[in-house]
Amino acid sequence: MHKTEKFVNDNIDKFIAELGEFLKFESISTLPEKTEEMKKCAEFTAAKMLEAGLDKAVVLETGGHPVVYGERLRVPGAPTVLIYGHYDVQPVDPVELWSSAPFDPVIKDGKIFARGATDDKGQLYMHIKAVQTILANSDELPLNVKFIIEGEEEIGSPSLEPFLKANKELLKCDVVLVSDTALYAPMLPTLTYGLRGLCYMEIEVTGPNRDLHSGTFGGAVANPINILSQMISKMHDENGKVAIPGFYDDVLDLTTHEREELAKLEFSEAEYKAHLDVNALWGEKGYTVIERTGARPTLDCNGIWGGFSGAGAKTVIPSKASAKISMRLVANQNPEKIAVCFTDYVKQITPESVKVKVSAVHGAEACLVPIESPAISAAAKALSRAFGKETVYQREGGSIPVVAKFKKYLGADSVLMGLGLNTENLHSPDEHFDLNHFRLGIISSAYFMEEYSGK
Amino acid sequence: MHKTEKFVNDNIDKFIAELGEFLKFESISTLPEKTEEMKKCAEFTAAKMLEAGLDKAVVLETGGHPVVYGERLRVPGAPTVLIYGHYDVQPVDPVELWSSAPFDPVIKDGKIFARGATDDKGQLYMHIKAVQTILANSDELPLNVKFIIEGEEEIGSPSLEPFLKANKELLKCDVVLVSDTALYAPMLPTLTYGLRGLCYMEIEVTGPNRDLHSGTFGGAVANPINILSQMISKMHDENGKVAIPGFYDDVLDLTTHEREELAKLEFSEAEYKAHLDVNALWGEKGYTVIERTGARPTLDCNGIWGGFSGAGAKTVIPSKASAKISMRLVANQNPEKIAVCFTDYVKQITPESVKVKVSAVHGAEACLVPIESPAISAAAKALSRAFGKETVYQREGGSIPVVAKFKKYLGADSVLMGLGLNTENLHSPDEHFDLNHFRLGIISSAYFMEEYSGK
Repeated sequence: MHKTEKFVNDNIDKFIAELGEFLKFESISTLPEKTEEMKKCAEFTAAKMLEAGLDKAVVLETGGHPVVYGERLRVPGAPTVLIYGHYDVQPVDPVELWSSAPFDPVIKDGKIFARGATDDKGQLYMHIKAVQTILANSDELPLNVKFIIEGEEEIGSPSLEPFLKANKELLKCDVVLVSDTALYAPMLPTLTYGLRGLCYMEIEVTGPNRDLHSGTFGGAVANPINILSQMISKMHDENGKVAIPGFYDDVLDLTTHEREELAKLEFSEAEYKAHLDVNALWGEKGYTVIERTGARPTLDCNGIWGGFSGAGAKTVIPSKASAKISMRLVANQNPEKIAVCFTDYVKQITPESVKVKVSAVHGAEACLVPIESPAISAAAKALSRAFGKETVYQREGGSIPVVAKFKKYLGADSVLMGLGLNTENLHSPDEHFDLNHFRLGIISSAYFMEEYSGK
Repeated sequence: MHKTEKFVNDNIDKFIAELGEFLKFESISTLPEKTEEMKKCAEFTAAKMLEAGLDKAVVLETGGHPVVYGERLRVPGAPTVLIYGHYDVQPVDPVELWSSAPFDPVIKDGKIFARGATDDKGQLYMHIKAVQTILANSDELPLNVKFIIEGEEEIGSPSLEPFLKANKELLKCDVVLVSDTALYAPMLPTLTYGLRGLCYMEIEVTGPNRDLHSGTFGGAVANPINILSQMISKMHDENGKVAIPGFYDDVLDLTTHEREELAKLEFSEAEYKAHLDVNALWGEKGYTVIERTGARPTLDCNGIWGGFSGAGAKTVIPSKASAKISMRLVANQNPEKIAVCFTDYVKQITPESVKVKVSAVHGAEACLVPIESPAISAAAKALSRAFGKETVYQREGGSIPVVAKFKKYLGADSVLMGLGLNTENLHSPDEHFDLNHFRLGIISSAYFMEEYSGK
């Protein structure tokens, strides 16, 4: 047995006990009355970093909750990895649905139950323990390590962007390592190498200048709800492709290698359908569900409203109807450019009988780190060694905003080595973290440093 | 000058003063605290009927506000006309927008301002004064007259249907005369000979069994908003015709005579568009706006909702999306049959990826009294004589539920001889009634009795 693995196994009870202490902090970032608790939690994090062997670990003020920064930079010429995580957690409501108190960790069936267990205290703590493990077995880390642990992830990281902008030199690195995602399945080593971006739009269709009686005016004027519906129906073609001209222009197609890798993920369409209670799935022809949800751009209406929605009948032709429509983007698509394509298309398909207003609500860049890149290769090897199993690759359909920010301000790709599970009730009562994954995560992190250093 | 006209002209100030008294009653049917006032108003109405020369005028209890019934049935062998109206009025809010107190009638520029002036006290009072006018000039009415004046029109006439059902013999008649609609234009004698019916439906589309994250699931499942929009877009063809199979099967087409008559109504598309602030009108190809809104069946979405409609962005694929869709029907179309056609069509165009629930909310029969029928002919002649102008014909796009009820329970058609104007602020502050129309309405009503009696 490798000495890393042995050390972790020998000390795992102690590490779990420490994690239990970490989980006791009621670090709910959205509650103003927890400001002091947030600070204490940040100080605990910094103290644990120093204990593990970092040379420096400080709590830095931001406009909001503080950031914990740590470093050990003793290997000139070796790469630098920046480890990101967050010590803040979601609120605990509805607290009555918890089986045990959310800030009084309980271990049951090999899992630790507490708010923040998997999201993200348990996952970030793996990396602190990985540093300690390596230094227990050798004189030095194989590379340079920096930590940035924020306290505002659950409220949208408002202070992180200014912090990154102001501290580019301090945070300079070759790669960012993030453990805030999930394994594809229990005990299946998984790397997320792509995230989709977003272009979120709103359309407002105006027909007549006021609500009209559908008896008196029905048949004379265009109804904005009917028109909006027609416009939405023109957003896809008969093959489930987005029909907006230019939409696919910049899409980076899946490589054959990627498609082979994604095909390795076990997926039961029958179970998926049963779980969602639908009789048929839907999407772009020519791609698997996994490809469609992770690696292909999509378009969905997120909301629609107009006219009367109460009980019974009101015979109105409303003046306005509106919809929120968002597009998930993939690598190389630019949200601003897509917003322009969308707006142009909407204007093109708007009939003369109505007026239309299109606005961009929000955008995010997709990201993709090639499977063959050194960081992803190192992480895949590390996970495979720790789990004793071949690593699988996945793309996440959603966005992780900090990843795009690291790319933007630090120029660094992120390796998403998440050890959680989507079934671990993050953001819900009875959040928990599998302690075997915690153990393997510590080992994987240590192996990653070794693999990525090239030693 | 005809003696009817002379008598009305000689007595018009007195008639207006009486109308002023009638308008002082705060007969707001929807307010429980006005129950006593409603009864007083009904008693006033009955008293005025007796004064005018009816043999009988009684206030009859119903489950709700009382009905006033009156009669003078002294001409055996002559037809019987049942005059319908309502003494209840709309609430007065927002009262601060009235130029004068709503129940303190004011005469200005030849108009009387008060709640209920045109809807419907002023209009029903014309018929009471017509009876008085005829009896002032001759020994007997030319036909038999019955009055039914209800107190719940503004709250949907809940007690009228049971009252009609229970009093078929009492209310037996050859035709119903109703003055609760509007002239096409000031001083233009107008008869409404058709009303559209209604078939009001609701659709609920269910996709996945819960709201989903559009990042994780976008591209895998059908989005109920997108599907609902597609379904709505399939409700019309490219010519603005309703695309539901069977929808037009029973439609009674406009006759050439009707189209000629409707073409006489002055209509400015430019003004209509400017008034609604739209750049183009819309509707079924091959028909004029007046034909489309009055004499052709139509389909409109009255409401749509689903997903997120707050400010900003929420990346959700909602579980459900719903719409209210109603169809205006024309003569000979049956609301129940149309509901079946609609439901069948919706099911036919529902893809396998979602479930759909269709429910019928409300239906009403259209009605049509042929222009050539004796009652319409008599009313047209009466109006032409009173106004000294050829009567024009119109169809109303909306429904007047009592008209269908009279047909159903009494087997009688209605003549809609409305003397109001759509610009007279019915249901709004500063409701008023043109006193010259009031005067001509009394004369027209008297002439109608004469013309319809065949004398």
